[in-house]
Formats: sequence, structure tokens, C-alpha cells
Amino acid sequence: MERAVRELWAESRDLLGLHSPDDAAAADAAMPRAEMPPTPLAFLRDHVSPGRPLLVSSAATSHWPAASLWPTDSYLTDALRSTAVSLHLTPDGRADALAPHPRPSHPGAKCFASAHVRQVDFPTAVRLIRSSDPASGLVAYAQQQDDCLRGEYAAVAGDVDAHVPWASRRARLPPRGHEAELRLKLELEEPERIVPWSSVDPYPPSPEEAAAQASSFPLYFEGPRPIRCTVRAGEMLYLPSMWFHHVSQSPGPNGLTIAVNYWYDMQFDIKYAYFNFLRSLEIDGSSPKKTDALEDDLEETND
Amino acid sequence: MERAVRELWAESRDLLGLHSPDDAAAADAAMPRAEMPPTPLAFLRDHVSPGRPLLVSSAATSHWPAASLWPTDSYLTDALRSTAVSLHLTPDGRADALAPHPRPSHPGAKCFASAHVRQVDFPTAVRLIRSSDPASGLVAYAQQQDDCLRGEYAAVAGDVDAHVPWASRRARLPPRGHEAELRLKLELEEPERIVPWSSVDPYPPSPEEAAAQASSFPLYFEGPRPIRCTVRAGEMLYLPSMWFHHVSQSPGPNGLTIAVNYWYDMQFDIKYAYFNFLRSLEIDGSSPKKTDALEDDLEETND
Repeated sequence: MERAVRELWAESRDLLGLHSPDDAAAADAAMPRAEMPPTPLAFLRDHVSPGRPLLVSSAATSHWPAASLWPTDSYLTDALRSTAVSLHLTPDGRADALAPHPRPSHPGAKCFASAHVRQVDFPTAVRLIRSSDPASGLVAYAQQQDDCLRGEYAAVAGDVDAHVPWASRRARLPPRGHEAELRLKLELEEPERIVPWSSVDPYPPSPEEAAAQASSFPLYFEGPRPIRCTVRAGEMLYLPSMWFHHVSQSPGPNGLTIAVNYWYDMQFDIKYAYFNFLRSLEIDGSSPKKTDALEDDLEETND
Repeated sequence: MERAVRELWAESRDLLGLHSPDDAAAADAAMPRAEMPPTPLAFLRDHVSPGRPLLVSSAATSHWPAASLWPTDSYLTDALRSTAVSLHLTPDGRADALAPHPRPSHPGAKCFASAHVRQVDFPTAVRLIRSSDPASGLVAYAQQQDDCLRGEYAAVAGDVDAHVPWASRRARLPPRGHEAELRLKLELEEPERIVPWSSVDPYPPSPEEAAAQASSFPLYFEGPRPIRCTVRAGEMLYLPSMWFHHVSQSPGPNGLTIAVNYWYDMQFDIKYAYFNFLRSLEIDGSSPKKTDALEDDLEETND
């Protein structure tokens, strides 16, 4: 079984033309790139359908007013001076992530931690984000799910395209009466965020944690190196569905990292069925039951 | 493991909207149908990418001269009067299929049988096809792989479109310098043909064979019922890659079944990697090693 999984790794990387990087320097080279945005058909055929990421150059967003306005020091604080936004407060910048379980009855267990959220005016949010410091135990970021760009940030939503043209034409659902859901999320994050649902920490903060992670997830840590890319100002990363991912940010000259996420519904097809099949298998002694237990924990935590 | 496979069956059927037919009458209703040909984008999005078949009505081919010319009694024999074509001769109409292994050293084994092929003029081929009878031990059909429509049948190739417009625009390969390979195959087949590589006979010819098949392939015979469709004159069936399939034919008023196949390269992506992963697993006691042994037999037979 473990051998079969290793072959699946190698073959899927190979078929997608995503060769496993030999070292950190080569990790960036594995990412498919495009100077110009693809056509909807080419994007669907070459990236969405096969599940292959794409990094599009800043030519894709150079026409956005945001490209020139948002990096300036005062534009956003002026435009959002009296706007209340959701500020997420965390001890270390990690929210929507696994944290040690607070209950003594769960020794060694982890739970899904969400940030504490407060509504503050935008200039206050920016001040708290800029003064964030994990050493002081307070890291803040402004973010909200569920279309916050057209909600809390409506005053500046017109500075970016309302959708991604080559993705929207594709994402129109099959003629069954549904409309494709489109959500936009504005993130002001610093310094690092673990994306929900991934229980592996690919960059453990200490040697002890590294050893614990390697012991818990041997198939991950002995597997192919992750593909890495740096998304620079104006660039767009297409992250396919069912790709586990890890994000860290470094601020620009104005002390902020600003990201706009466009969410498109995934196509639930045979790839998704295979994905679930793979998750249901008992591989390398890690029983699917452990996942169930984890999900129970998550539900407890969210209650 | 077996439970995981059963869940994969159910989920993949469900996600593709291909509900398992309850009985033979409902089997035809499960097939997605389109009155008009889809756009390249919709075809890619709703059928090729998810791996979902499609039956397109005869509106797709009503402009073909073949639609009116080929069913007439004399058109093809006139146009191909002096043309030599490859006539395949078999005892029972099954070629490119598994047959009992002829060597006594392989008791119970099956081998991959190909038809005996002779070059005859087309009118002779039609006469032999029309007089085919499994009871007499001779069933003939005219067919040739590798673009025979533009080879042996070049005189009538102009009667059909050279490609399928909504598939060709899609199948253009990613801009890596390849051209999509396009092959056409003309088939005149009667009465039944098992498609290569499928070792299951879904319609065993005798109760003994049915029992042997059910014992050899319990996961198939206990699994979801196959989806069935009848492709009538002028209709087009899109059969996705990696779909095992079984074809049988019944002749039209002129005593012939004429089919044109358009082959497009499949996209070797994560679906293919998952497919190979699934095949590599030991499920229900049927070891992947058996497959290797079968492939050895095939190589022996083809030598």
C-alpha cells in the first residue's frame, strides 16, 4: 500500500509536469508560469481539469486601479477611514490552524483554533497590524470570509476586477440551474498563516516539533518536496482544488501584505471521488479513524 | 479496502450524475444526452474534465453527406469498387478479445486474440460481412486501426467531417509544441466485439461461463450495473478515457453497421495517476500480480 502511494506521488507529479524540486533553489522553478492570462478554454484544459497550478504575471492585474493606489501610504486609510472591519487577533499569527488542545482530558491532542475577531475602524486595524509581534503575543490581521471585499471593503472593491475573466467564463456551472458562487476575500495578514484543514506543519518551529511532525506524518516528510512559489505584487496564483497548501507572508514597503482571493466552486467529479477514496485507506498505520477523531475534536472546538 | 472501493463506485456515479440504473429499462436513461453539439468549453468542462459520457443527437451529423449516402445500397460498393480493404476474419465476431489460451501449458489461461486479416476488394468484403454467421464459424468485419478512413477508405472520407469541431478545439495540446493526434477508424462490424483490455465479459454466453466470470470478477458482477445506451444512426457517443466499455452491433436495413471513430489523445493527468493507483491495489484477493501475468501472456501472444 505504501509503495502504491509512493508511485501515485511520483506519477502525478510527473504527469502534471511538476517535477519534484531537488533543493530549495529549484522549488520555485517547478511552478508553471504564464506571462499573459490564458484563455478560458486553455485555463480549463491545462490547469483546472488536470489540477495543475499556475502563476500569472502581474500583466494580469496591471489595469487594476489597486495596482497603483493600494501600495500608497494613505489611500486605503483615507478611503476606509470610518469603516469598521473584522480584525483577527491571535497570539502568533496562526489562526484557522491546529493548536494544542486546551483540555487536560485530551493530552497531546490538537484542536482547530480560530482567531478572536473584533470590529474596529480600518485605521486602527492597520495600526495594530503594523505593530504586530509574535514575541509580544499579539499578531493581528484583517480578514473576513464570505465576500468581505464587497462587504466591509466595498469602498475599495471597485479598485480590482469583480471576477477573473478567464476563470469566470469557465466556472459557469453546467446548465442545471445553479449559479457559480463567487466570493472575494481581502486579507491583510502578517506574518504567517496556516491554512485550515492541513494537519501537517511543513515548517515546524523547533527541532522537537520537527521530530514530532516527522513521526506523525512520515509519508509527508519522506515524500516529494513541496512545490514552492513566491507571489509578488500584482501576480496571481491559481491554486487547484484539493491541493494542500501553506502560506506565509512578508510585508511590502508600507508594512502590509494585501491579498485578494477569488473563490470558485470546485467541480466535484471523479478526482474528488478518488481523493476521498485515498483518504479512506489505511496507509502506513495511520488509520482513517484518526481523521474521524480529529473531526470530532474540531466539532467540539467549534461548538 | 473492499468497502472503500464500493464507496468509490457510489460516489463517482453520484458526483457525475450517473445514477446506477435499477433495471435494464432504466439503463438507457442514465446516459447524459444533448440535442445540439456542446461548445468546446462546455464539452471540456462538463464531459472531458469530469470523465462523463455524452450522447449527441443526429443533429450533430445531419450535414454529413454520409448521412444520406452511406445507407443506400450501392453508393459504398460503387465508390469503393476496386479498393482493397482489410477484412478481419474471426470464428465468432470476437477479435481483440480474450480467448482460451491455445497452449496446453497454460490450463485455464486466456490470451488476447486478434483477428486474421486479409486484403480483399470492398465489394467482396461486404459480401462476406453480410454472409457472416457465428454458427458457421466465420464472422467477418472490415476495420483497420491507424487512420484507415483516410487510408483505405479515402474515396469516401470526404463524406464525413474530418474532425469533431467541439472536440478538436479542445484537444489542441498545451502549447508545448505537440500537435494533437487525430486518427479515424472505419468499422463495419457484426455481430459483437469485445473491446481490447477488458478482461470481464459482461454478457457471458453460457451459464457456466457466467458462473466462472462471477467467481473471477466478484467486484464487477456485484457492483453497480453498467450504464447502457443505444447509439442510433447519425448519433455520436463521447466515451471518456479510462471507461471500460463493451460494444455490440445490430445491422441496418442494408445488412451492415457502419461506425466512424474519432480518437483524441487523452489528457494524462491526476485522474490517470489515480486510475493506476487503484489498479495497483490488492482488492478482494485479486492481486495486481495477476495483471502482470496476463500482460506477459499478451506479449507472448503478440510476438
